[in-house]
Amino acid sequence: MDFKSLIREIPDYPKEGILFRDITTLIKDGEAYAALTDAICKSLQGYDVDAIIGAEARGFIIGAPVAYALGKGFIPARKPGKLPCDTEKAEYALEYGTACLEIHSDAIQPGMRIAVVDDLIATGGTAKAICDLVQRLGAQVVALRFAVELEGLDGREVLSGYDVDSIIKY
Amino acid sequence: MDFKSLIREIPDYPKEGILFRDITTLIKDGEAYAALTDAICKSLQGYDVDAIIGAEARGFIIGAPVAYALGKGFIPARKPGKLPCDTEKAEYALEYGTACLEIHSDAIQPGMRIAVVDDLIATGGTAKAICDLVQRLGAQVVALRFAVELEGLDGREVLSGYDVDSIIKY
Repeated sequence: MDFKSLIREIPDYPKEGILFRDITTLIKDGEAYAALTDAICKSLQGYDVDAIIGAEARGFIIGAPVAYALGKGFIPARKPGKLPCDTEKAEYALEYGTACLEIHSDAIQPGMRIAVVDDLIATGGTAKAICDLVQRLGAQVVALRFAVELEGLDGREVLSGYDVDSIIKY
Repeated sequence: MDFKSLIREIPDYPKEGILFRDITTLIKDGEAYAALTDAICKSLQGYDVDAIIGAEARGFIIGAPVAYALGKGFIPARKPGKLPCDTEKAEYALEYGTACLEIHSDAIQPGMRIAVVDDLIATGGTAKAICDLVQRLGAQVVALRFAVELEGLDGREVLSGYDVDSIIKY
């Protein structure tokens, strides 16, 4: 499927000089949304995974159906103050600005095998923060999968040593 | 499946006197997450639906896999300033405080048939705001489905005239 034809490009958003890839135009297309989800699931075939982590908020839209389709649990990585119980926190740099993510400490047990599934890999900062959180909780990130990859931003270098793949590459 | 045994209860969160129902403990369980998603899909059987709308952010975790499982598109209702193109906006009252949601104006075409799928119905304010947005864009909400319903808060009254159902009732 030609996913790129369904992704809207928005110049100078959210800042001048950034070409924003808007996947809402892809996911509102039922056939494309299912094909994208299935492609991510296929890229995880043969992996022994206990749960999927996705990052708030767009990452939920990509990671949650992958978890469902694979019959796995979904663990949200959320913005600060959104999770009601004890959390592990990680601050990180974004393509533009900084941010913080939290995971419920008891959502991850030592030894668990985690796949991180997110909408986008740009600089890799968000994904690396999640990997650090998972590691701190004694578990292992066995794969990272992204709907969209901005190859020019070298996110894979930040994630070197991890198993990284994406469906739509720019 | 005994979903309630998997939902964590947190007293006085986010405010004193509120008993928060934390579904992260349910959705991290792969079998339960799939069963919950399937139960929502079953409750939409026989409905002619063009797309699913879910509200940021927990609503994405419930609505997105339902959209995938039904082969429908997913349209996010997001917090202000998060969607990159022209939006319709609705302000509304929450169980605690007020909020605003936006939908991309071009995500919904006149005549579309929409199912709203969200994690929780409390006072019904969020769901009613989405219904108003859909109506303003010339489309129709044919069903509203919720993972959890807090019956004591009378959300269904706010949504009278709409087809409302939920899986887990308190």
